[in-house]
Amino acid sequence: MTQPLRLGIAGLGTVGVGVIRMVQRHGEMLATRAGRPISISAVSARNRDKDRGVDLSGYAWEDNAADLAARDDVDLVVELIGGIEGSARETVEAAIAHGKDVVTANKALLAIHGHDLATKAEAAGLALRFEAAVAGGIPCVKALTEGLAGNKIERVMGVMNGTCNYILTRMESAGLPYETVFAEANDLGYLEADPTLDVGGIDAGHKLALLAAAAFGIRVDFDAVRLEGIERVTIDDITHAADMGFAIKLLGVAQLTGRGLDMRMSPCLVPLASPLGQLHGATNMVVFEGDAVGQIVLRGAGAGEGPTASAVMGDIVDIARGLRLPVFGVPADQLRAETRANTGAPSPYYLRMDILDKPGALAKIAACLGEAGISIDRMRQYDHADTNAPVLIVTHKAGRTELDAAIEAMARTGVLASEPVAFRIEQIGE
Amino acid sequence: MTQPLRLGIAGLGTVGVGVIRMVQRHGEMLATRAGRPISISAVSARNRDKDRGVDLSGYAWEDNAADLAARDDVDLVVELIGGIEGSARETVEAAIAHGKDVVTANKALLAIHGHDLATKAEAAGLALRFEAAVAGGIPCVKALTEGLAGNKIERVMGVMNGTCNYILTRMESAGLPYETVFAEANDLGYLEADPTLDVGGIDAGHKLALLAAAAFGIRVDFDAVRLEGIERVTIDDITHAADMGFAIKLLGVAQLTGRGLDMRMSPCLVPLASPLGQLHGATNMVVFEGDAVGQIVLRGAGAGEGPTASAVMGDIVDIARGLRLPVFGVPADQLRAETRANTGAPSPYYLRMDILDKPGALAKIAACLGEAGISIDRMRQYDHADTNAPVLIVTHKAGRTELDAAIEAMARTGVLASEPVAFRIEQIGE
Repeated sequence: MTQPLRLGIAGLGTVGVGVIRMVQRHGEMLATRAGRPISISAVSARNRDKDRGVDLSGYAWEDNAADLAARDDVDLVVELIGGIEGSARETVEAAIAHGKDVVTANKALLAIHGHDLATKAEAAGLALRFEAAVAGGIPCVKALTEGLAGNKIERVMGVMNGTCNYILTRMESAGLPYETVFAEANDLGYLEADPTLDVGGIDAGHKLALLAAAAFGIRVDFDAVRLEGIERVTIDDITHAADMGFAIKLLGVAQLTGRGLDMRMSPCLVPLASPLGQLHGATNMVVFEGDAVGQIVLRGAGAGEGPTASAVMGDIVDIARGLRLPVFGVPADQLRAETRANTGAPSPYYLRMDILDKPGALAKIAACLGEAGISIDRMRQYDHADTNAPVLIVTHKAGRTELDAAIEAMARTGVLASEPVAFRIEQIGE
Repeated sequence: MTQPLRLGIAGLGTVGVGVIRMVQRHGEMLATRAGRPISISAVSARNRDKDRGVDLSGYAWEDNAADLAARDDVDLVVELIGGIEGSARETVEAAIAHGKDVVTANKALLAIHGHDLATKAEAAGLALRFEAAVAGGIPCVKALTEGLAGNKIERVMGVMNGTCNYILTRMESAGLPYETVFAEANDLGYLEADPTLDVGGIDAGHKLALLAAAAFGIRVDFDAVRLEGIERVTIDDITHAADMGFAIKLLGVAQLTGRGLDMRMSPCLVPLASPLGQLHGATNMVVFEGDAVGQIVLRGAGAGEGPTASAVMGDIVDIARGLRLPVFGVPADQLRAETRANTGAPSPYYLRMDILDKPGALAKIAACLGEAGISIDRMRQYDHADTNAPVLIVTHKAGRTELDAAIEAMARTGVLASEPVAFRIEQIGE
């Protein structure tokens, strides 16, 4: 048997412990699969004394994660610290500087510094892999950069924040308002310390930016992702959407349009009968559309000890087997800096607003759409007890720029009682 | 740029033409992704004069596919001939003998000769890859042997014959009997020349045997797959199943039980609300359950030019990038020859039969189950116009051996008007 691949594990939270458990439990199986033993030389975390329920006595300890990189008995640094700057970035930089391969689960780090880190790793002939950073246990980065390498990718979509999908499906199944379910999720420990990372779409946006880079051969550009959180989705929206055959999901979509790269992470209506529409709870789903393969759907757990450790270990086994691949599937120096599309491809929109209950109000709203060149597919005014009338409009295909112009014009009519909510209806085959 | 990877393509049917189109259309993209150009040196097929709608003038022609292997300008032989023996086997054997890597879409060849060929390829230090042989465009072999390499796989399931799934979902949606839909599928060219390969479960069984080998580190053992076709599924079965919240699928299941390896390809009831239950038309789905990752579901086109060529090209790009992996994920000489389980894990069963319409008939049937130690969850006798009464029974968990004993006993009662149909209810989380 050849030389072992010796790991240094930086960060001993849930995922770090999961990786250690996997090495301890499945050592023989991993060696058979990888063609060489996978061992752990050293670990690092903030608190040495904490009981993590796993035996660390066989591993050296480093107080400073970046020092793992300098150890002669470490071949590969597993970065599971998290965060865009600080220890996580220093550790990855140090690993590359010391000629160590890197596996990370850190979506935020790569969404911001991914191009720089990929450039450095590739210049040093090192692997930098991040399967666990996107959609947890689903081997989607591998599917995209390897299995589908023969395809021109046309669109990437994903429900990649389990917490948001949990909130939306729980609102639907229990008929509870957003605020209540948000509080529940918080009590259950599902939310990040800064919940905006989840419900504001930032975490999922990081993942989308990484997938888009690999899908289209472009530089990671998180700032180009138009983010819209789920805070404004109401039970009424969910019910109206279901009436029309749609579910509402925090959906990431990336595609190259004639006007450049369009990336959005926003609440969208998707067909109830589609795999995305059927996705309940905290499960994640990624959809790739390629010119040859058509639509490929991948579904699985997006977070948690086992699934995330599974993804980390897949990367480790790849490296143990000698797989060498550019970080984003094509060499970093050939990744294009893609123009950002000012607006996405036209699509139908779902609009919901309250208008003042007086003669001619609805006509004024409809006129604003017409003047922006947007035609109406369906319009409903609902029963109401107070002086404001809830109105629901589904448009035919419209550009977002035109839609925003129409919404601005509506505000000037003086008949709106609330700011309109506009959700894109993403067109997806079933 | 490094040396090109030069292909010899054996077989110019739909998939071969698809691979050639992909190389011609996406040459630059493929070179960027693979790190070297991918070119075609030579091709081979039975009929040189046939117009295949693709320009072959730049490639050498070999009348005998096995001769591709001997060419100095071929690094990798792509075997797309098909069949267990004859030209396909000779070509792969010749390629290995001449030190050429091999990519094949031939499930039948590998299901029968896979262990032998893997042993030979690995002994010669060559790649033999077969992503396209299982579930068409879905990169499921890669997901299993690479992405999920950190997992002990607990169960593999799949709907992997698009024609069968088309027939079953068309029966359901159009309310047409099996024979009618079978004829339709035949007219549409969906069926193999020998339709038993499809509706008898043989084709899907080949795929299951390959996935099981990779999942459990065992030798390919197609003969161990218990095959049962869809010929006996009726519209009534589909309707009854739907009433109870199930869909009927030709489902492959492989798992290691305490009594050995259990592999079945048979019509099963799966929850309507599960991804498998939601799968319509010719689409394929593969489900992996791992001890760390939980359930991973992969969905996509299982056949056709583009999807199959996509899978072939994924393998080619892997080889161009230098990926070297044992054929079934672990070295062939370490694959275990697993004991075949005599019977699968106990599960609930759906039973349908016609009994003679006379007093005490139903009691006799129920007694047969009771004497075999099988308890009844639900039983229904349906309205009927003739002298036979259709009866439907759902059992609690039962072993297949006990169930078969009960069915034999039923036959001896003299009250059966037809042989009972028994479909397993596969227990799957939603």
